[in-house]
Amino acid sequence: MRIKPVKIDTYRENVLFLRKDSELCRAQGFAALEKVEVTCGDKTLVGVLDVVDEHFLGHGEIGLCEYAFKRFGMPAGTEVEVRHPEPVRSVELIRRKIHGEVLKAEDYRYIIRDIVESRYSKVELTAFVVACAQGSMERDEILYLCQAMVEQGEQLAWGREMVVDKHCIGGVPGNRTTLIVVPIVAAYGLAIPKTSSRAITSPAGTADTMEVLTNVNLTLPQMQEIVERESGCLAWGGAFSLSPADDIIIAVERPLNIDAPGQMIASILSKKKAAGATHVLIDIPVGPTAKVPTYDRAVQLRKLFEYVGERMGMTLEIMLTDGTQPIGRGVGPALEARDVLQVLRNDPAAPKDLMEKGLDLAGRVIEFHPAVKGGYGRSLAQEILQSGRAYDKLMRIVKAQGEHAPVEPGRLVKEALAAKAGRVTRIENLKIAKCAKLAGAPVDAGAGIDLLRKVGDEVKAGEPLYRIHAEEEADLGYAWDYWQRHPEMVTIE
Amino acid sequence: MRIKPVKIDTYRENVLFLRKDSELCRAQGFAALEKVEVTCGDKTLVGVLDVVDEHFLGHGEIGLCEYAFKRFGMPAGTEVEVRHPEPVRSVELIRRKIHGEVLKAEDYRYIIRDIVESRYSKVELTAFVVACAQGSMERDEILYLCQAMVEQGEQLAWGREMVVDKHCIGGVPGNRTTLIVVPIVAAYGLAIPKTSSRAITSPAGTADTMEVLTNVNLTLPQMQEIVERESGCLAWGGAFSLSPADDIIIAVERPLNIDAPGQMIASILSKKKAAGATHVLIDIPVGPTAKVPTYDRAVQLRKLFEYVGERMGMTLEIMLTDGTQPIGRGVGPALEARDVLQVLRNDPAAPKDLMEKGLDLAGRVIEFHPAVKGGYGRSLAQEILQSGRAYDKLMRIVKAQGEHAPVEPGRLVKEALAAKAGRVTRIENLKIAKCAKLAGAPVDAGAGIDLLRKVGDEVKAGEPLYRIHAEEEADLGYAWDYWQRHPEMVTIE
Repeated sequence: MRIKPVKIDTYRENVLFLRKDSELCRAQGFAALEKVEVTCGDKTLVGVLDVVDEHFLGHGEIGLCEYAFKRFGMPAGTEVEVRHPEPVRSVELIRRKIHGEVLKAEDYRYIIRDIVESRYSKVELTAFVVACAQGSMERDEILYLCQAMVEQGEQLAWGREMVVDKHCIGGVPGNRTTLIVVPIVAAYGLAIPKTSSRAITSPAGTADTMEVLTNVNLTLPQMQEIVERESGCLAWGGAFSLSPADDIIIAVERPLNIDAPGQMIASILSKKKAAGATHVLIDIPVGPTAKVPTYDRAVQLRKLFEYVGERMGMTLEIMLTDGTQPIGRGVGPALEARDVLQVLRNDPAAPKDLMEKGLDLAGRVIEFHPAVKGGYGRSLAQEILQSGRAYDKLMRIVKAQGEHAPVEPGRLVKEALAAKAGRVTRIENLKIAKCAKLAGAPVDAGAGIDLLRKVGDEVKAGEPLYRIHAEEEADLGYAWDYWQRHPEMVTIE
Repeated sequence: MRIKPVKIDTYRENVLFLRKDSELCRAQGFAALEKVEVTCGDKTLVGVLDVVDEHFLGHGEIGLCEYAFKRFGMPAGTEVEVRHPEPVRSVELIRRKIHGEVLKAEDYRYIIRDIVESRYSKVELTAFVVACAQGSMERDEILYLCQAMVEQGEQLAWGREMVVDKHCIGGVPGNRTTLIVVPIVAAYGLAIPKTSSRAITSPAGTADTMEVLTNVNLTLPQMQEIVERESGCLAWGGAFSLSPADDIIIAVERPLNIDAPGQMIASILSKKKAAGATHVLIDIPVGPTAKVPTYDRAVQLRKLFEYVGERMGMTLEIMLTDGTQPIGRGVGPALEARDVLQVLRNDPAAPKDLMEKGLDLAGRVIEFHPAVKGGYGRSLAQEILQSGRAYDKLMRIVKAQGEHAPVEPGRLVKEALAAKAGRVTRIENLKIAKCAKLAGAPVDAGAGIDLLRKVGDEVKAGEPLYRIHAEEEADLGYAWDYWQRHPEMVTIE
């Protein structure tokens, strides 16, 4: 048969198309959802079959979706053999994991290799993710998963003995400390070549916020050059193939909104290892509406991080931080960038909680350096911030990466008012995040929520609690409706 | 936007298509794999988005795959509103099941309703199936699942006080006892309106084997008329919407090859309840290469069946049977039909094990009748078989359903020969099934394996162990290769 590209974006799944009336479907019993193998010489591709009618394909043609066509790498019209593939061996391992078995290092290696080679269907991939999320993974299994993920991707090298990094497990809106930590640490002189993600389920990822100010799509040589000169940079990690299995796994975790400890730890540490980090600070916010609700759970998580991190050959520091409410005021890329710049400019209007947390984290990262006495990192960080060197450093990095006019907060605004007088006692992270997303964040970088009152603040009846920013009237309406239906987002007592 | 049918068979998943350059994808951030809701008046459809290029759709068009287009039920070109749907509420319940919670009756009702209404993506569906397969389901959860499955489908009524049925949990090739039990029981006078499945992962389902002799696609009125006259029939269950959730769930269990006890029991008993059965005999074959490897496990399973069956208002009998090797000689639709006819004709060449098992089961079903003394069913069954009344009954049913010339065993044959002399000590069910499928069964009804020696038989070196039947040279080759690579299929000692 001859291959034909079919311009459908299947999100990292190899989908192949055969005509309903084709010989293969009629006589050989190929049916929708089955696996099909396409071969040409030593090139092989396994995908899931969709059956189509005659409008899509000519006789003797097999369609390959965009992703599959690119992976196969042969021109349209190439003659191929089509057959039922040997079953993917590692699917048997997933079945064993479902039945509660503890898998071995080589088992995870097989599974991750098959994931990276796109041999799994969405069904198989989901089965793996759920089986690992539900049955507790042994801590050695987390390690094996992490190692396999690193092995199956690129690894960055920086030619430095110490490369530091920081990572927050997420769940707290507005928590954009990375843009404060990176310039402070880089100004101190430690190498911090930061790769960050875009938002997955949140209203802004670090890469989204940095993109408000500058280009974040860097090549490896560009990053290397900038780090050489400035010690730090802040690029979008998706441009590199660090732990590619993780990117594929996230595609099914996202719609399920699950983020099990084992996979989370393997995901974070594999990305850090692949990015060449030697010393990593992990920030675990704890709070009733954060990812980790109690300190007991946070300590469990800390131990898992420590166990796996040490065996991956990295030095880890874990900080349990306050995750009871959003950090800073802005929630959404442009609003968060504004908060960050206020902090770095030592603006008296800067949100104090964001500044304090930024300094705490930066201080701990600086203390990775053997020359710094325990407990002295924070004052070094503070000195760098107050002297304006941190601001200068961020501006130099912004310029080096490709500065552009910053995105401004969305011009459509509507204020949520306090229904009564009192003190703010509770702000729910998840609902603030949801509301900011409905306003358009992160797709519209200017959209989001600007919190005008935080927990502990007094408010009079009718005074604004927060301001919704949007780019589109419809989005402003969605966010407003959500607030109307969820007044418990902000509790006044 | 206007809807346009896209002729892609997505196997029971609603897939919607938007152009990459459409307003919705660009500005509103709709991305591949996300959920999209389409509304027109009170008609609503939720599906998963695939993003396509401009060749597929005009401006202002949204594509609906065949399945979605049929479900939506509106003509092409209908104006619809497109938006992000509210999240499917019951996905939250799945997340809770993943985290180990025991769900309640109404939880299963929500989940099954959303499954039947095609509100789940394949990822969500798989997550549910795996979460239930892995964490043990409490026996009450199996009951709730079973009840919810029945509620969400059609139910057949027969206007009789007693309607009997039998079901084998499967896993043993050639085990085609239903075609023996139905005519014996019907000849005795009990109503046995049998609905059977086609093969899911095996080389032949009961419906496939019956189809060798007659039409199995019956409407409900046809079935009712035949049962009225003959007391029995044997139709394909897929023609009715009995427990439709089960059909959807099987679509993801099949590629994973999992069949967890909870879902298996809910699946079987919901189908029986919906088909109107009051008394059901369940056959659980036990053997190292059967579904249930040990008697301990079989007894556990029996208790679960009993618990759920009683609460579903059915009388259940469970038989643990010998599943150490295939039953009868033929494996594959036409070869199995031949075995069945030999038994019913009292042919001296008939496979004795199939006859004995058929009589055991038929006897137990007959004993459901209050008038039959315990232990007397089998001799009644034997009398009906030996007198030829069972054969006559099957022929009357075959004629009533729409007789056609029986399919003959495949004309291409190749014999697998014994490598040495000795006694056959072991025949592996799974590998025999696999080999029969490679030969073309069940798509080619004549294809399969004819076992010429069974466990305990003596064989000389070079004598045939079994015969492969196929319709196509290529398939004969595949099956032969498999045998060459897996001589342990049949062990001689």
